Amino acid sequence: MERLDSIVVGCGPAGLSAALNLQIRKKSFLVLGSKVCSPWLEKAERVDNYLGFYGISGRELRDHFLDHAEKMGITIHSEKVSSIYHMGDFFLVKSGQKEYESKTVIITTGVHIEKQLEGESDYLGRGVSYCATCDGPLFRNRKVALLDYTEGEGWEEAAFLSEVVDKLYYFPLKDKKERNALANMEIEEGKPVALKGNGDLVQALVLDQREIPVEGVFIIRETQRADVLLPGLETKNGAILVNEMMETNIAGAYGAGDCTGKPYQISKAVGQGSVAGLSAVSFLEKR
Amino acid sequence: MERLDSIVVGCGPAGLSAALNLQIRKKSFLVLGSKVCSPWLEKAERVDNYLGFYGISGRELRDHFLDHAEKMGITIHSEKVSSIYHMGDFFLVKSGQKEYESKTVIITTGVHIEKQLEGESDYLGRGVSYCATCDGPLFRNRKVALLDYTEGEGWEEAAFLSEVVDKLYYFPLKDKKERNALANMEIEEGKPVALKGNGDLVQALVLDQREIPVEGVFIIRETQRADVLLPGLETKNGAILVNEMMETNIAGAYGAGDCTGKPYQISKAVGQGSVAGLSAVSFLEKR
Repeated sequence: MERLDSIVVGCGPAGLSAALNLQIRKKSFLVLGSKVCSPWLEKAERVDNYLGFYGISGRELRDHFLDHAEKMGITIHSEKVSSIYHMGDFFLVKSGQKEYESKTVIITTGVHIEKQLEGESDYLGRGVSYCATCDGPLFRNRKVALLDYTEGEGWEEAAFLSEVVDKLYYFPLKDKKERNALANMEIEEGKPVALKGNGDLVQALVLDQREIPVEGVFIIRETQRADVLLPGLETKNGAILVNEMMETNIAGAYGAGDCTGKPYQISKAVGQGSVAGLSAVSFLEKR
Repeated sequence: MERLDSIVVGCGPAGLSAALNLQIRKKSFLVLGSKVCSPWLEKAERVDNYLGFYGISGRELRDHFLDHAEKMGITIHSEKVSSIYHMGDFFLVKSGQKEYESKTVIITTGVHIEKQLEGESDYLGRGVSYCATCDGPLFRNRKVALLDYTEGEGWEEAAFLSEVVDKLYYFPLKDKKERNALANMEIEEGKPVALKGNGDLVQALVLDQREIPVEGVFIIRETQRADVLLPGLETKNGAILVNEMMETNIAGAYGAGDCTGKPYQISKAVGQGSVAGLSAVSFLEKR
């Protein structure tokens, strides 16, 4: 496996800005992001405070950003990174069933707005997973639930999972598209509120009106908590702790944009992304 | 005197970005900057890493920035701030012979590239001054030198000074424009290297080839050291110390852009300016 210089996780303003500097400095890297890249930006009706563009819509601004990246020869891969492991002198980045190795990672995953479910962190790795394609096979012949907080991206994970498990309870919590249940799948409604277990393993998904006994719960969100994405990463109130060079507590791992905390500003994300890109370049050149 | 909500010192990328947020939040403020606004940006042949603009010249990018500010109704005043005094719950900002009061200040003065002269900081306020229009009258009937490191902005200061002092030695160190000496003025050549005195007061300007006995030395640079501009401001290696909210050690005073240190990046300056503007707004609204 070729070991890349860097992987940029996310393709919003911070991620693209980091990528510009990696490209200018001729580093080998991938940008892995969601299909939408920046759901917040896309929905902004009007942006007046990104210097250089007056009275522009979020969608138009995003198109300028993507166009800039494309003209620089930067390709964005629509892949959802499920986890990153720090392997000492490199990082192992998992995206579905793919794996990449890179010397640095730049995390620009934005903010996630959903609160964690009660019990979610207690049972992480003990029935709770954020990646069906990674952990699905561990639940062969079992009953599991998949909570899909994305606008359709979780469906592929659900489809994969339904082929493996005994029974899949699929909860499309945001996606409004009509779908037909696949084999072994039930499409469910209701509001997930908690996960229950015996202290050791998950035993049930608790909804507002009822409970479903399950041995696994897959939770798919647009963005994932950074310290769950990269175990060992220091965060505070969910925000990645960075210094002014956008360095995290892990050498070679950088954070930029909304995932590093408030204020949530496009210009701040772009500036931090730029610094993170340069810091990664500097780290690579020192080695 | 009307007390303003804020004064933005500098009109480069950081200053303009801060001004956008002050304007959006309907604060009363002034942007005071040099004629060029951002000499570094203006000279950049090509900028590829300010997200949204591909392959643009520094001058064009600056024009986009100024155009954005203008469309937002922001006026830039070509005034050089000579000093800022923290008066407890407000700031007194001096620009030539004008004075302003403001509740907050946002310092975005960029980097100065000239090293200080030997003896310069020792004799500051004891013969050395950075503002002829402010301190000129103190040198009535004396011999003084004016070291002009700007591209012409020092000439007005020199003209004023020549009417007041007994003899003015004017050193146009960067400005290439041919000028005729005014009354009491000699236009000089040579490389200033040090200031000499009796430990208490300046007595001579030391050049590479000779010395000139003077009682005052005025030094006019594009940008001034931030801790000289605002006495009491904490700096490190010349860079303003700021936290992630762009707050300095002085409540109500913010720093953004190159004057806060490396890396010197347009996008970083814009992002920091944006945060500084929002922090000032938040400070004003808490009071």
